Amino acid sequence: VTAPITFSGNPLDRASERRTDAAWLADLRAAGRFLPFWQNRPLIKDGRAAFQAWSPELGSGTCVFLGLENAQGYFAIEIGGETAPALAGEFQEMRPAALVLPPRDAAIAGQAKTLLDWHARHGFCPNCGHATEMKDGGWRWLCPACGSEHFPRTDPVVIMLPVLGDECLLGRNARFVNGLWSAFAGFVEPGETLEEAVRRELKEETALQVGAVRYQQSQPWPFPSSLMLGCHAEALSRDFRIDGMEIAEARWMTKVEVRARLADKIVDEIRLPPGIAIARHLLMEWVKG
Amino acid sequence: VTAPITFSGNPLDRASERRTDAAWLADLRAAGRFLPFWQNRPLIKDGRAAFQAWSPELGSGTCVFLGLENAQGYFAIEIGGETAPALAGEFQEMRPAALVLPPRDAAIAGQAKTLLDWHARHGFCPNCGHATEMKDGGWRWLCPACGSEHFPRTDPVVIMLPVLGDECLLGRNARFVNGLWSAFAGFVEPGETLEEAVRRELKEETALQVGAVRYQQSQPWPFPSSLMLGCHAEALSRDFRIDGMEIAEARWMTKVEVRARLADKIVDEIRLPPGIAIARHLLMEWVKG
Repeated sequence: VTAPITFSGNPLDRASERRTDAAWLADLRAAGRFLPFWQNRPLIKDGRAAFQAWSPELGSGTCVFLGLENAQGYFAIEIGGETAPALAGEFQEMRPAALVLPPRDAAIAGQAKTLLDWHARHGFCPNCGHATEMKDGGWRWLCPACGSEHFPRTDPVVIMLPVLGDECLLGRNARFVNGLWSAFAGFVEPGETLEEAVRRELKEETALQVGAVRYQQSQPWPFPSSLMLGCHAEALSRDFRIDGMEIAEARWMTKVEVRARLADKIVDEIRLPPGIAIARHLLMEWVKG
Repeated sequence: VTAPITFSGNPLDRASERRTDAAWLADLRAAGRFLPFWQNRPLIKDGRAAFQAWSPELGSGTCVFLGLENAQGYFAIEIGGETAPALAGEFQEMRPAALVLPPRDAAIAGQAKTLLDWHARHGFCPNCGHATEMKDGGWRWLCPACGSEHFPRTDPVVIMLPVLGDECLLGRNARFVNGLWSAFAGFVEPGETLEEAVRRELKEETALQVGAVRYQQSQPWPFPSSLMLGCHAEALSRDFRIDGMEIAEARWMTKVEVRARLADKIVDEIRLPPGIAIARHLLMEWVKG
């Protein structure tokens, strides 16, 4: 594996056996450290996640338990309202924030964002429609009407680089900002293995014939709740066909060219994925060989 | 990889680009093949999934689109009611059914079970509590009140075999039926990689120090909607500690012993995981080396 990947390396101990204890959590919260979020953005100050002691400005929004470090409890809290609260620092979008934060802070902020995001859209029981109650510091919702339990979801996504000899296939997604060429990706569906999902997605998006699939590494991706499963997929032929809709363009690129582009030695309209993205790690690993 | 794994090898083309077309789906349904489910159990006849043409006995319960084969549409339909409907065959529990069905039928029935199960528990919008409407043959729910979309969930689960030299660590889960010793497992949580989830779960369940984690293969597991991600985890020491609660017992087992047990050459109270389980595939791969 090439290098630590953004949003990994979370140092907090999730204490999953203890967070079910409401009294324990309440004690922890009294002396806790809180990362404020506003409109889905973490508070950043001096290039760090702005954890702070509780204060009335933090309000009474959704508060989730992130974990323990040195016996101290870390929490994230969503602050509502139309205007940004008067707290020292700046509420920044997660993507640009992840580029500047130390890896541990990006990982913690990413974990917090996924949890708060999930809570913002899951206040009601999907089984009966009743309002649910948060339990276990945000790791479980219980429906008081029908008794069903609900847990924050994590969506497995396959992301794969098709390779054939000295070339790999990259695509330009129609939704991508201009010039970004990357690996192919899609959600794993019920009833398929990771490897089958890789083959299906490549068939749908590129009509490529695929042989062996090799898993490389994974990444939690908090937009909103994906687990990216990065793979190399051996193409059996250079023939591909794109629909021109979801994938606007695709083309084979040699190792020599990818290496040069990763090193910023070619300056044109094509951009490879940024360091924050697992797709770049797939490319970095491939050009090594 | 050792052998095809149960619930993989689904031959149907999910046609995910076309299933968004309601008129196309309606045409397909008129000449479709339907697998009846009753109380979460697929209908089995002569050792096969009992797909059949539509008939009034199938009723008007939730019907989901599974995929295409030879231009024919395959669907699953949930039949309500307290007593089993009078259809030729037997409604069997998924686990025993998977042991007898041909692999392709087990895969299709597993996919169907996950989808129907999800639908049975997700009739209401988690965002606002309103009743939702099924779209895309069951692959999307739309809330007519708040406009939010919801998709069937797939829960990534790590399952890992700790290995140290010539030994592996197996545990007996307190929830397991008597005598079953297996690998360790747990849900991947928001904000962690697959490899971090392996380490966290092993730390929680066994207090084991873990080095490299190596992914082996995956399995869709329709109880109700897991994606099992099977790994080997290099243990750095033989020391472990279990809580005696979730994990009732654990012990190191040599390759010689595991090989003998996989071949049914040791008859005692210890049972290894059955062929249906990815844990057995982890063991089979490990004893090869």
